[in-house]
Amino acid sequence: MTTLRIAGGRVLLPDMTVERADVLVDQAAGEVLAVGGTDQGDEHLDAEGSLVIPGLVNAHGHAAMTLLRGYADDKPLGAWLQEDIWPAEAELTPEDVRAGTELGIVEMIKSGTTAFADMYFEVEEVAAAVDSAGMRARLGHGIVTVGKDEAAARADVEESLAIAREFDGEAEGRLSTAVMPHSLTTVSEECLSMAVEGAREVGVPIHIHINETRDEVEPIVGERGIRPLEYADELGLLEEENFLAHGVHTDERGIELLAKTGMGVVHCPASNMKLASGMAPVQAMLDAGVSVGMGTDGAASNNDLDLFGELRDAAMIGKLAADDASAVPAEQVVEMATAGSAEAIGIDGGRIEAGANADLAVIDFDKPHLTPAHDPVSHLAYAVRGSDVRHTICDGEVLMRDREVLTLDEKEVRETAEKRAVELVGRA
Amino acid sequence: MTTLRIAGGRVLLPDMTVERADVLVDQAAGEVLAVGGTDQGDEHLDAEGSLVIPGLVNAHGHAAMTLLRGYADDKPLGAWLQEDIWPAEAELTPEDVRAGTELGIVEMIKSGTTAFADMYFEVEEVAAAVDSAGMRARLGHGIVTVGKDEAAARADVEESLAIAREFDGEAEGRLSTAVMPHSLTTVSEECLSMAVEGAREVGVPIHIHINETRDEVEPIVGERGIRPLEYADELGLLEEENFLAHGVHTDERGIELLAKTGMGVVHCPASNMKLASGMAPVQAMLDAGVSVGMGTDGAASNNDLDLFGELRDAAMIGKLAADDASAVPAEQVVEMATAGSAEAIGIDGGRIEAGANADLAVIDFDKPHLTPAHDPVSHLAYAVRGSDVRHTICDGEVLMRDREVLTLDEKEVRETAEKRAVELVGRA
Repeated sequence: MTTLRIAGGRVLLPDMTVERADVLVDQAAGEVLAVGGTDQGDEHLDAEGSLVIPGLVNAHGHAAMTLLRGYADDKPLGAWLQEDIWPAEAELTPEDVRAGTELGIVEMIKSGTTAFADMYFEVEEVAAAVDSAGMRARLGHGIVTVGKDEAAARADVEESLAIAREFDGEAEGRLSTAVMPHSLTTVSEECLSMAVEGAREVGVPIHIHINETRDEVEPIVGERGIRPLEYADELGLLEEENFLAHGVHTDERGIELLAKTGMGVVHCPASNMKLASGMAPVQAMLDAGVSVGMGTDGAASNNDLDLFGELRDAAMIGKLAADDASAVPAEQVVEMATAGSAEAIGIDGGRIEAGANADLAVIDFDKPHLTPAHDPVSHLAYAVRGSDVRHTICDGEVLMRDREVLTLDEKEVRETAEKRAVELVGRA
Repeated sequence: MTTLRIAGGRVLLPDMTVERADVLVDQAAGEVLAVGGTDQGDEHLDAEGSLVIPGLVNAHGHAAMTLLRGYADDKPLGAWLQEDIWPAEAELTPEDVRAGTELGIVEMIKSGTTAFADMYFEVEEVAAAVDSAGMRARLGHGIVTVGKDEAAARADVEESLAIAREFDGEAEGRLSTAVMPHSLTTVSEECLSMAVEGAREVGVPIHIHINETRDEVEPIVGERGIRPLEYADELGLLEEENFLAHGVHTDERGIELLAKTGMGVVHCPASNMKLASGMAPVQAMLDAGVSVGMGTDGAASNNDLDLFGELRDAAMIGKLAADDASAVPAEQVVEMATAGSAEAIGIDGGRIEAGANADLAVIDFDKPHLTPAHDPVSHLAYAVRGSDVRHTICDGEVLMRDREVLTLDEKEVRETAEKRAVELVGRA
C-alpha cells in the first residue's frame, strides 16, 4: 500500500465545516484512509495555506464541444443548434472528438473537477481520453431520432445500449455509463421506450435533457396535453437512478414528480442564461427534496468548463429566480457541485471521509481575491475560480500538481485541439 | 521620452476587430504613440500569444469593502446593510480603509482593471493608495444624512465637496473626483440640492445609487407620486457628466430621461443578482442610446473585484432580462467595460489608438479554457478571467509584469488586510 499525505492544509468536511487536518490517501485503493491522524504517508502533497475539498463533479456536459467554444454566441438554443452547432458537429471525426474531449478534460482537471457525466458520440474516444487522463466519468451515446427512418432510429438506440454495456466498469472502475436519449422532443416515443427498457436490462441509468426551453415544452403540451415530466413519467423514465439536465421550465407538479421519484436534476445555470432558456426553480426544488447536481453543459454554451463558475452562477441566479437573497446560499451550491452532483449521476463522491473515493481538489487560498478568509465556504461559492486550484487528485492518483497536469501533455492537447477546431469550422 | 514597446501580440481596436500589431507607448506622457509601426522602443513587454486590450474601467465600487468579503452573504440589501455592513463599517479606522483599498487595488491590477470609481469615506486614504499604486480613479466621499441632525447632515455634504475640491487632478492627473450622495432615500432633499449645486461649483460630476432595489423606489413613489429618476430630474441631478449605479428598477420613462439627459448608468450585475435586487433592462437602455458602463460594486456583494466576471454576468443576465439570447452580446459587454465605463465616469480611456491614455491590459490566450480562439472578443466576454491577465499598464507605467504587481507589495498588502479584517469584525 502506497499512501499519500496531503499535508498542512484545512479540509472541508461533509457537514460543511472546515478543520485544520491532513488527509491520508491509500493510492492503490483510491480511497481516503483518514482525515487527521499522524501517519506520515509515503508521499507528500503540500497543502499549506490551502483548502482540501471534494473534487467537483460536473454532472452534465459534452466535453468535446470545447472545439466549438466561442464559435457561435448570442443566439437562442434552436437557431444555435440548427444553424451552427449541428452542421459543425456533422463534420466531427473520431480524432476531433478525442482532441476536444482531451481539451475539456485538461480544463476540468485544472479547475478541480474530478468526475463528469458526458453525452456525446464517438464515445470510444471519450472513454479512451478519460481512461488515459485518470478521471472518473459516466459516459453515454446521445440518441437523436428526429429526421431518421425507423431502422436508423432503432440503430441509434442500439448503439447507445451497446456503448453502455461495453464501457460500464472499465478503466479500473472509473468509467460508468448511461443510456442517453437527447430529449423528449428529439427522440420518438417508441425509441424512448426502447431506451428505458434497454437501460434497465443493461443495469445503467438514463440521462436526458428535459424542460430546458419553452420550445421543448410547448410541442409536448400541444400534442399530448401533458407537460414533459408527466410524459416522462408515463414512459417510466423518472427513476431514482436516472438524471435529467436543466429542468428550467419545471412547474409545481413537475417538482412533485421529481421529489417523489428521486429523479436527479442537473442544474446548468450558465448555459440556461447564455441561451436565454430561463431560470430553474432551484430553491423550490431543494425545498421539495429534489436531488440537485450541477453541470457546465458544453463549452459552446458557457463558454468554459470551470464548474466554480456554476457555483457562483447558481447562487446568483437562484436568488433572482426565488426573488430572495437568502435563496440558494453558499453552502448549498458547494453541496450541489460535490455530493449533489455525485448523487445525481450515481457515483461515490463529494465527501471527504475515511472510506470515500480519494477524489480531491486542493485550493490555494493565498490570493488577494480570497483575502480575508472570514468564511471559506463563501469563498468557494462566490470568489474561488478554477485557476485557484493547486492540485487535483482522482481515485488516489495526482492528476495535477502545482498547476501542472501530469496525465496529459497540456501543450500538445491545446495545439492539437486548436488545429482540429480551425479545420473543423473550415469544413462546416 | 522613454518608450515602451508591447511586442508580439494582437491588439483589440476600437471597432472591436483584432489585429496583429505592437503597441508603442510614450511612458512620460502616459499615451499610446502608435499601434503597429516599426519603432523598437526603449523597453519591451512581451505579448506573444496574448491580446492587448484597453484596461478595464470599474465604474462603481467601494474598494475598501474587500475587508468584508464573505463576511455576510445570502441576505437582502436592507438587512445586509443594517445588520452586518453598517455596524462593521462604523468600526473602520483610516488605516483599515487604506488596507482594504490597497487589497482592492491589488485585486483590480491583477485582473486587468486600470481605472475605477470609488464611493467611500476616509477618502484621503483611498487617494493615497491610488496614488502610490499608479492607478487612475474618480473618488468621492459618500454622503448619508439619514439619522443625522441638520448640522451634521450639512457637514457631510461639505465634506464631500471639500474632498472633491482637494483631490481633483492630483496624482499627476490620475485622480479625479465626484460629489457622491449615497442615494435618493438616504440623503435628504435639501442635502441632495446642496450636493448638486456644490458639484457644479467645484466642477465635478455627481455619482449616486439610483433604482437599485424596489425598497428604494417605493418610498419615493409613495411620498412624492413620482419615480426616482423623475425626482432626480427635478433636483437637476440628471446631467451628462453625472453617473448613477445600478438602475435596476428603471421603467420606460426612466430610460427616456437617461437617454435625453446623457446621465450615465453603471451596471453591476453580480451585486444585483447576489442581493436579489433584480435585472437591469440593459438591452433596452442600449437601444435607447443610454450611456452604460460596468462596475463590480463592493467586494462584500460580489464577492470579488474581477471585472471580467461582470462582463460574463452582464452578457448572461442581459439575455434573461430581455428574454432574448441575442441581447447584450459579447462585443457590447467588452465595449461597456472599457469605453462605456470610461465615458460614464468621465475619464479618457477604453480605446487603444494613438493619443489615447496608455491604460492597457495584456491577456494571455495560451490557456486551455481560451482554446480554440475562434473569436477573441467572445473569449473576453465569456471565458477570460482576471487570472489570465499577464501585464497591466496605467498611464504608461507597468503596474503588473508577468503577474507580479510592481507598485505595491502584494504579500504585505494581503497580510495587513487579513489582520485588520479579523480585528474589525472582532470589534463589530
